[in-house]
Amino acid sequence: MDIAAIVEERGRVSGDLVLVDDFLNHRVDPVIIDEIGRQIAEHFADLDPDLIVTAEASGIPPAMATARYMPVPVVYAKKYHSIGDRDTLVREVLSPTKGVEYRIEIARRALESGGRALIIDDFLAGGRTAQSLGQIVEESGGVVAGYAFVIEKQFAGGRDLLESHGWDVWSVVEIAGIENGKPVIARPRES
Amino acid sequence: MDIAAIVEERGRVSGDLVLVDDFLNHRVDPVIIDEIGRQIAEHFADLDPDLIVTAEASGIPPAMATARYMPVPVVYAKKYHSIGDRDTLVREVLSPTKGVEYRIEIARRALESGGRALIIDDFLAGGRTAQSLGQIVEESGGVVAGYAFVIEKQFAGGRDLLESHGWDVWSVVEIAGIENGKPVIARPRES
Repeated sequence: MDIAAIVEERGRVSGDLVLVDDFLNHRVDPVIIDEIGRQIAEHFADLDPDLIVTAEASGIPPAMATARYMPVPVVYAKKYHSIGDRDTLVREVLSPTKGVEYRIEIARRALESGGRALIIDDFLAGGRTAQSLGQIVEESGGVVAGYAFVIEKQFAGGRDLLESHGWDVWSVVEIAGIENGKPVIARPRES
Repeated sequence: MDIAAIVEERGRVSGDLVLVDDFLNHRVDPVIIDEIGRQIAEHFADLDPDLIVTAEASGIPPAMATARYMPVPVVYAKKYHSIGDRDTLVREVLSPTKGVEYRIEIARRALESGGRALIIDDFLAGGRTAQSLGQIVEESGGVVAGYAFVIEKQFAGGRDLLESHGWDVWSVVEIAGIENGKPVIARPRES
């Protein structure tokens, strides 16, 4: 299944946003999300992570779909309510997409000291949320084994930010830009 | 796999809350969540729903796990950000658990007029969120085919509220009360 073709055909553009809520992050198509999970697990088949880390809410479906193929636990960071646990790891994140600052928070007990985390999210744009998740993993004593995104906006700088930490990044679909109200799919990278 | 025994052993009580974030709604165990999805799909095998409806974020894992067995799309209501779509269905919900009022919102295009929705969430307590999801489904022209919860607190009144609408309710695990800092598992209902 060609996920890029689906994003190209069914993604709706609003300003500089690519809306995929018809099949990915509001209404989730069971066949598409399963294929996304399969592709991420296949790409990282040699990674052997101990857990998947994501952030609520839209990261959860691709994380769950990938976990089914690995299979490993999924830890999702909370954004909107404090967890109540006393021992949590927190980062403040500025989201340029939404124009707000929010907290992401993971209980230390949810992570594993020394554990290898595959970090998954639906979108890679500026990369601030992803970077914060990686920092939380490392603060817990864990290791960032890699990053997987469903859709990467190449023009938003997130890959450079994550790679500057030495972290490995892979995306199912990369968007080179937006033209005539449609996302322009980038050519696949050489692997 | 006996999900009730897992809730009894691993659920942590804080006040009148039963915390299951070690395996269900912060760190999600892949084997446990898969079994929960399997049991819900098995219970509702004759229901033949067109879609599953839940609310972000903690409803998404059991909804995704069930959808894998059905398989149907999962629509998750947004709670914290407006969707941006002009045509949305909205309810204000008072959450006694969290002591706050919040909005749940679903784009009309995500639902199907006439579609039969199985509504899934992690907890049934007072039932306000679940009731609001059912009302949104009906407002969209759809039908509430049934409700499935992972954990029901029998003493919180949610079942009566939902059944007063004529809706069918089933829970994987029912908790009769909390004693000595542990959840007390209710005996299974006659089916």
